Amino acid sequence: DPKLKIFALNSNKPLAEKIAKAVGVELGKLAVDQFSDGEIRINIEESIRGAHVYIVQSTSNPVNDNLMEMLIMIDALRRASAKTINLVIPYYGYARQDRKARSREPITSKLVANMLVAAGATRILTLDLHAAQIQGFFDIPVDHLMGAPLLADYFLEKGIAHSDDVVVVSPDHGGVTRARKMAEYLKAPIAIIDKRRPKANVAEVMNIIGNVEGKKCILIDDLIDTAGTITLAAKALEEAGATAVYACCTHPVLSGPALERIEASPIKELVVTDSIYLPEERKCPKIVEVTVGDLMGDAIKRIHENKSVSPLFEN
Amino acid sequence: DPKLKIFALNSNKPLAEKIAKAVGVELGKLAVDQFSDGEIRINIEESIRGAHVYIVQSTSNPVNDNLMEMLIMIDALRRASAKTINLVIPYYGYARQDRKARSREPITSKLVANMLVAAGATRILTLDLHAAQIQGFFDIPVDHLMGAPLLADYFLEKGIAHSDDVVVVSPDHGGVTRARKMAEYLKAPIAIIDKRRPKANVAEVMNIIGNVEGKKCILIDDLIDTAGTITLAAKALEEAGATAVYACCTHPVLSGPALERIEASPIKELVVTDSIYLPEERKCPKIVEVTVGDLMGDAIKRIHENKSVSPLFEN
Ligand SMILES: Nc1ncnc2c1ncn2[C@@H]1O[C@H](COP(=O)(O)O)[C@@H](O)[C@H]1O
Ligand SMILES: Nc1ncnc2c1ncn2[C@@H]1O[C@H](COP(=O)(O)O)[C@@H](O)[C@H]1O
Repeated sequence: DPKLKIFALNSNKPLAEKIAKAVGVELGKLAVDQFSDGEIRINIEESIRGAHVYIVQSTSNPVNDNLMEMLIMIDALRRASAKTINLVIPYYGYARQDRKARSREPITSKLVANMLVAAGATRILTLDLHAAQIQGFFDIPVDHLMGAPLLADYFLEKGIAHSDDVVVVSPDHGGVTRARKMAEYLKAPIAIIDKRRPKANVAEVMNIIGNVEGKKCILIDDLIDTAGTITLAAKALEEAGATAVYACCTHPVLSGPALERIEASPIKELVVTDSIYLPEERKCPKIVEVTVGDLMGDAIKRIHENKSVSPLFEN
Repeated sequence: DPKLKIFALNSNKPLAEKIAKAVGVELGKLAVDQFSDGEIRINIEESIRGAHVYIVQSTSNPVNDNLMEMLIMIDALRRASAKTINLVIPYYGYARQDRKARSREPITSKLVANMLVAAGATRILTLDLHAAQIQGFFDIPVDHLMGAPLLADYFLEKGIAHSDDVVVVSPDHGGVTRARKMAEYLKAPIAIIDKRRPKANVAEVMNIIGNVEGKKCILIDDLIDTAGTITLAAKALEEAGATAVYACCTHPVLSGPALERIEASPIKELVVTDSIYLPEERKCPKIVEVTVGDLMGDAIKRIHENKSVSPLFEN
């Protein structure tokens, strides 16, 4: 039986450790650093010939460095005769450019998919792609996990989501399917924030579709970047009479003014996963982290045993 | 006749300006910046449908960002129906990993070639590849220009290389072919520095093959990175009785301790090209710059007119 090996690149070693622990193996020996001129140097310090290799890497900021680390690692593994090269990508970056919205735009999420496959990837395991359609950008197997049940479990365990006065809220019409899934899991109703700009140069109006008055609201999104959308949504919910506003997302991108906005907002707690590594200085008091280590580790075990990963909340 | 358009990405706009001037066109309108989370955003602000597009970009430090800019630009151009996508790469980075020297090493220069072609490049125009073999990593046309004649011209114009007491010196045995070319151009003899480490943990011995005593020496290399090789070579030449030591290279990578080493060395002048953009703080008094703008611009004109670029010192 060919060996299973897991290697952690630089973006998220703490999660890679948890994944390896869940699988029941040690992380492979690997050194990834830079030459003096900034070019990436990779040293795989153990044999991988004939092995099923899993690379754990999120293409979070610094996204170009993290992506190149992954591409160079794939190249090295392929030339060293790995049997399969499986990419474990907790956060798949460059996903938001996933269609041509205007003339002469790139489609970076397809470009990245092409690069990964051209380099030699044979399988992808990922979590909450910004658009599920990105699975179709690959012609190799893609296992697509969902973070919503883990986030929901947090609210259940804290007793927040047990009562009948809970509503799951999508901060925009693009996220309704995700909110539906969580609401089903929690046996709760949903509401939707419908932003409209009545005229150009006039402030947006936040319409709330659904009943939130006197309710606890749980906002859910796939990623929170500058936190504009989610904090405006939270304000609108408070103004509409919500008794408490919680928020959650799978991918805490949290760039620019995100942390200040979250702290200044009516959001009581923001629950995120560890798909993107957050050092202490990129956290704020309202942020609570749940791990996807077991979820992704179990998926790796099932892939290695040729079992479907669907029981693990596959999308 | 389809239009010729030249776009400059972020690595070396001053050179791109010179190239466009030599071709006799204005640079195309383009904005390349970043989203808040560090992902690259490209806006091509004029039509390129059916055009022959030339992208000027060196994959110098920050190499991963510069490479991703180029890949995303290629993707956008291909989707916007450019007729041909020609990459003008004055400095081709990641070139030094061009073979497997040890087990489990990547070959990054081939990886980069594959990525550029997979993204949609149809032709490459470049300058002094670290190894000429990298041309074979592409299955699209590669025009490979040489900087040595321009560097030699500088020494001729300054009267340094006119006398018969000049020797062109290769700082290591890998660079002999390049030194030969320059020596032919200058009608001068060559010498070679042959570093040997007699035993492990014993300092290297610098043997000089050829006669340098009482001569002016011109050291030539393709790139100078940390400047260890070139400054040690200069010291060895001085000790062997050279009356003056000059140095030149096409690509001034100049990372880490390079500038201090050059200033502290016996090198009188270091002549480099503008293949890599050097802001003032990355220059030092000994550095003299010659431009490859006309060389590359003339090559673009010849490519556009379906002429061979060989008269322009092709390798
Ligand atoms: N990293 C990014 N940050 C912000 N906006 C982005 C990013 N990447 C793409 N976009 C833009 O966001 C839009 C997609 O929006 P959405 O689907 O809501 O994420 C596209 O029009 C993109 O131009
Ligand atoms: N950016 C870099 N900086 C320094 N050394 C490198 C770099 N890229 C590759 N190398 C190493 O340099 C060796 C090639 O040496 P050379 O052909 O003299 O440049 C290879 O064994 C590489 O591992």
